[in-house]
Amino acid sequence: MTIKIGIVGYGNLGRGVEGAIAQNEDMELVAVFTRRDPETVKIQSNAAIHHVDDAEKFIGKIDTMIICGGSATDLPEQVPHFAQWFNTIDSFDTHAKIPEFFETVDAINQKSNTTSIISVGWDPGLFSLNRVLGEAVLPKGDTYTFWGDGLSQGHSDAVRRIVGVKNAVQYTLPVPEAVEKVRNGDAPALSTREKHTRVCYIVLEEGADAAKITEEIVTMPNYFADYDTTVHIISEDEFNTNHTGMPHGGFVIRSGQSDAGHKQILEFSLKLESNPYFTSSVLVAYARAAYRLSQKGHVGALSVFDVPFSAISPKTPEQLRAELL
Amino acid sequence: MTIKIGIVGYGNLGRGVEGAIAQNEDMELVAVFTRRDPETVKIQSNAAIHHVDDAEKFIGKIDTMIICGGSATDLPEQVPHFAQWFNTIDSFDTHAKIPEFFETVDAINQKSNTTSIISVGWDPGLFSLNRVLGEAVLPKGDTYTFWGDGLSQGHSDAVRRIVGVKNAVQYTLPVPEAVEKVRNGDAPALSTREKHTRVCYIVLEEGADAAKITEEIVTMPNYFADYDTTVHIISEDEFNTNHTGMPHGGFVIRSGQSDAGHKQILEFSLKLESNPYFTSSVLVAYARAAYRLSQKGHVGALSVFDVPFSAISPKTPEQLRAELL
Repeated sequence: MTIKIGIVGYGNLGRGVEGAIAQNEDMELVAVFTRRDPETVKIQSNAAIHHVDDAEKFIGKIDTMIICGGSATDLPEQVPHFAQWFNTIDSFDTHAKIPEFFETVDAINQKSNTTSIISVGWDPGLFSLNRVLGEAVLPKGDTYTFWGDGLSQGHSDAVRRIVGVKNAVQYTLPVPEAVEKVRNGDAPALSTREKHTRVCYIVLEEGADAAKITEEIVTMPNYFADYDTTVHIISEDEFNTNHTGMPHGGFVIRSGQSDAGHKQILEFSLKLESNPYFTSSVLVAYARAAYRLSQKGHVGALSVFDVPFSAISPKTPEQLRAELL
Repeated sequence: MTIKIGIVGYGNLGRGVEGAIAQNEDMELVAVFTRRDPETVKIQSNAAIHHVDDAEKFIGKIDTMIICGGSATDLPEQVPHFAQWFNTIDSFDTHAKIPEFFETVDAINQKSNTTSIISVGWDPGLFSLNRVLGEAVLPKGDTYTFWGDGLSQGHSDAVRRIVGVKNAVQYTLPVPEAVEKVRNGDAPALSTREKHTRVCYIVLEEGADAAKITEEIVTMPNYFADYDTTVHIISEDEFNTNHTGMPHGGFVIRSGQSDAGHKQILEFSLKLESNPYFTSSVLVAYARAAYRLSQKGHVGALSVFDVPFSAISPKTPEQLRAELL
């Protein structure tokens, strides 16, 4: 008996989820749901394609629905909607709104006897888990999260919106000296500027003023003003050759001290050639957990903190103890 | 209301647990239990000291008992014994016997309405968790565990048993080239010899034959024959100055591939100035979980795989979501 999965939304994330399901023998993609005309959507697998309005017909035929929309407007609307009928997984990442989002989804789950795991991915997600682990195991200490080397979608978009910019990517890089200090257990106090630098590669429209655009980028409030930012102006060819991937990663470091004064350092790191594909892989593992926990009688919203790793693994607890403990 | 902890066995690990409890405001050390004459045992805190035979009198007064004995003979006897009366935590690390140990303890738990979390620490323990996570998230890939730089107790003991050796420590070191290949996602096949080297620092008895002892070490079956081993003969002074700590650590790396062919690398690493103090810190966090899960009605044996991180943290799920997700 395979676990039956549905996908809502077929962008980068939805495509990644489709690929990740293909890597898991205990899972099956039943259908992709789209807001577009289903006739116009081509997918990689043989799964059915339906309009989102048809999802209700799949009650009982899908064990977990993975909602692959954006955090700004899609997920706050779609997750409560689909949680009426299905267990759900999402990658909601608007940190400040997580508590409110959780309460909204949980209320639907309670009424509908469903289980939703919210804010799944790597940050929020696996990085969050390691922040909790670090604090729990080393209560006296400091936690540091560094991101990169990686492409930041939001910052790339911000640069692309500048008049005269034809195309742009922005990479976030951790500052090596800061990382070194943290790894050595020096527990430094680090400002925003001391932790990360930002690098932009931009293609200009013909006749655009390079100096003016560069100035506009490096002084942009919220996005760049608090960082040391470097802007490289490149050709469209170079852009297409070197800057169309979506690498990312980073690390969570807990630098703590045992009661007797010993320095103890815990680090979790990711080096990802594709950010959306990795996020998708995490979503799929937690889709298994949502189904399993729901089968065990759980009802309600959960975060990754509430899900034991035995629930995300295809192996039985007996196998896990014998093979991996 | 604090969580009331008991310690069975007061060696390095027991002392570390006592220190770790002092770092956790929601916990209280009620008593240390020893097989020695309690009058002869001095501890760091104000907790009571009792003979192990008096433990039964503490039923209802201790929420979780942390059993700090050795895996060879202590834990297989003590964990089932104390699980009759208390929730327990142990660091049982004889990998091949874990399934049998689990079944034995679980049978006692079921009869006694208690909860035991077995094989807690960093390996088995946090490293095991990361092996499961890596496989679940990246089903196509390879998992590598490297240990070190660190002092290996068993190997140090083996060297100390050689006639003519007055004192000795053995350090396990990961081979940097092997680690580099794994981190680059090359997914190499690595022999035992290619993964780790071993370095011994030994103090000789007067008149001992250095060449003969060195040969005896490097050819010792099971312990050293499969590794490249270096032996340094040092003075007792140098030994006491530089080799009395118990550092350890290592890393678990999952090198996997998304369906679309992207390399994705996940790494968890530890750099520990004190191995026993860190293991103790992990035991204490899971002692909280044993109590909490038991309060929620759970009965039976568990491994770290079955315990969500929300159960090891002193924070509420609401706090965790707001502060760390």
